[in-house]
Amino acid sequence: MPEVSNRSQTVPLSPFRKLIPLADRARANGKHIYHLNIGQPDIKTPPAAVEKFRRLPWEILDYSPSNGIDSYREALRNYYARFDVDLGADEIMVTTGGSEAILFFMLACLDPGDEIIVPEPFYANYNGYAHIADVRVVPITCHIEDGFALPSADKFAGKITERTKAIVITNPNNPTGACYTRDELERMSEIVKDHDLFLCVDEVYREFSYDAPLQSILQLPGLEDHAIVIDSVSKRYSATGARVGALVCRNLSVRESVDRYAKLRLSPPGLGQRLSELMLEDDGPYLAGVKEDYGNRRDVVYRRLQGMPGVFATQPGGAFYLFARFPISDSEDFCRWLLEEFEYKGSTVMLSPGPGFYATPGLGNAECRIAYVLNVDDLESAMDCLEEALRIYPGRTEGSSVAVADLSRDLG
Amino acid sequence: MPEVSNRSQTVPLSPFRKLIPLADRARANGKHIYHLNIGQPDIKTPPAAVEKFRRLPWEILDYSPSNGIDSYREALRNYYARFDVDLGADEIMVTTGGSEAILFFMLACLDPGDEIIVPEPFYANYNGYAHIADVRVVPITCHIEDGFALPSADKFAGKITERTKAIVITNPNNPTGACYTRDELERMSEIVKDHDLFLCVDEVYREFSYDAPLQSILQLPGLEDHAIVIDSVSKRYSATGARVGALVCRNLSVRESVDRYAKLRLSPPGLGQRLSELMLEDDGPYLAGVKEDYGNRRDVVYRRLQGMPGVFATQPGGAFYLFARFPISDSEDFCRWLLEEFEYKGSTVMLSPGPGFYATPGLGNAECRIAYVLNVDDLESAMDCLEEALRIYPGRTEGSSVAVADLSRDLG
Repeated sequence: MPEVSNRSQTVPLSPFRKLIPLADRARANGKHIYHLNIGQPDIKTPPAAVEKFRRLPWEILDYSPSNGIDSYREALRNYYARFDVDLGADEIMVTTGGSEAILFFMLACLDPGDEIIVPEPFYANYNGYAHIADVRVVPITCHIEDGFALPSADKFAGKITERTKAIVITNPNNPTGACYTRDELERMSEIVKDHDLFLCVDEVYREFSYDAPLQSILQLPGLEDHAIVIDSVSKRYSATGARVGALVCRNLSVRESVDRYAKLRLSPPGLGQRLSELMLEDDGPYLAGVKEDYGNRRDVVYRRLQGMPGVFATQPGGAFYLFARFPISDSEDFCRWLLEEFEYKGSTVMLSPGPGFYATPGLGNAECRIAYVLNVDDLESAMDCLEEALRIYPGRTEGSSVAVADLSRDLG
Repeated sequence: MPEVSNRSQTVPLSPFRKLIPLADRARANGKHIYHLNIGQPDIKTPPAAVEKFRRLPWEILDYSPSNGIDSYREALRNYYARFDVDLGADEIMVTTGGSEAILFFMLACLDPGDEIIVPEPFYANYNGYAHIADVRVVPITCHIEDGFALPSADKFAGKITERTKAIVITNPNNPTGACYTRDELERMSEIVKDHDLFLCVDEVYREFSYDAPLQSILQLPGLEDHAIVIDSVSKRYSATGARVGALVCRNLSVRESVDRYAKLRLSPPGLGQRLSELMLEDDGPYLAGVKEDYGNRRDVVYRRLQGMPGVFATQPGGAFYLFARFPISDSEDFCRWLLEEFEYKGSTVMLSPGPGFYATPGLGNAECRIAYVLNVDDLESAMDCLEEALRIYPGRTEGSSVAVADLSRDLG
């Protein structure tokens, strides 16, 4: 029998993938599970756009241009202009989800063995795409105590080698919910200019910044050759299945390199692009409503965590994630136990264990990511479960009784 | 300024990409271009399915399972059962177009430096995916004189090294239109069993086999561990923009390996999958009509080529391509000349030059691929252009006066 590749055996998997069969079993046993593990929102895709999409006249679902439908890229240009980012339509390349934009960035900008510096905890799938592209992920650790702020310039400089080609950050951050300040981004800007690096910023949660408008890297002057933005409609319009993202870049060489990979896969999804173009129309009230909704959810989760002894979290400024420290020493075991052994009023809660978001071994053992993608009532019930679980979990550590602190103002 | 990767500079491009700016210029100058260069059919996506798709009730376009929507995979099971292929739904993994299935096959089954043997001429994008996966493409040359039949077992055996992991064939073939006989496939079957290789067969043109039902590799007994089929709705339903394909495999290890990559990119396009599921319903009359249509187009192109002095072609059995030899010595120059210097009744024709379909340098210089994706009237006009072009082309070689021969019966 022919054997599969060695490389396929070491593809890094999602932090919660191991838990899925346990969740399936729990559900089969009649337990209700509050899914706070995955970024699949329960919010409707913009209904008006969906209705217009149904009525769109078309007869042949043909290939779109490999960099996206022209009129959609033109609409995206206007979208970026809303926050004073002036782009040519050619500077926006439509991709098959943000995921493909990440892979294209790595293939276009890095050779095998090259390195990216990524503040940890980070979106775990960066590991997977780095694995495909044979790129080394060099983590730089952020800390829960200061709300996962970006480390100092010195700390970044200490990680730069002759193989370093880029710094990759997620803003607003998944999994921490941190939104970076203009100061933090300017610091990044100086580093990449000093060391001739790319600065790839994943801004797929851009619209979900609750306390201040998000600072996009595209707004910073002087970064034209360095900045690469990953974007996506998935979370913005609650349309994760559309598989429509974008890579935005003013550097022509980068675009020409990305274009070779884009042409290879022929075109991004046509139906998703047409829907995306419609979703951009008059989306102000929708986006405002969704942002308010997520803001309320954030407040519920943060408030409830404050009431749980031994839990530490800072108030996240954006995205729909919160990364909390619990009075536990093995978050993988805690998440397993929640699904296999715990039940409260017929329900339990599924979280993502912390270690999967770190590249440094040994970190995140007391931490979990909470995706607040459920409505406020369900979130309250999920928090009831979590509170009770932490009370009776056999692995509870008594020492960690640091109080929850709101440090978000310090980051402003 | 940070520099792009070296690897991105060597991504193999499509055989006709260099011609696109020339075509754009010709069009801007008012010349009409018959596009016989690309596999974008002018046939309607099944109208009944499109209508049902418009009426599908949905509110949230969420992630589908990473291996595809369950009901769609179940529908695909029934599709394969039509030609007596009995599969479990888990043996069908939905991908983002056939393209992604090719990449997943390479990543899951081959390590960097491993080799695939591919009969040439072949679908040029295999080169691009092999480039990403760092896989070596080892060509084995087929010949126009015998209708591009598969080479003998000895010839394949002569190409096998310790790094060979798979043979990759396209059936019906792009760019030659060849449909392989049961004998040819059984020969392949013996080779891969003897040498413990995978046999990856790209069957995206399966429904377009004009002279006999296509022999799918899935129908051959004893290949359960070896056979991997690439599939796609793109050409079958004239829905290239759906970006919905599949990787079909009975080997559990392969599926588990593919699954890791599938999970990484979260899910294939949701709207495309829903449309694809509807396109499978009652598709008999549609597919029969399309097949008849393409069959007529094939007949037009083949008949017209027979009337052109110095042109050699065999009648293709399937797909919608024909690979012909012309009385020219530089098909790149001929295709360039067609766009830049030639015009007949205000029109010209765009073809794909032969060399891009070969991995062996120096082959294909007298050959071009013709994609008969236009309606019969347009094809007649396109053939008028081609006939006139060949008459006056300054680079015409006088020596090559082999007549067109119908060898398809010999391959039966």
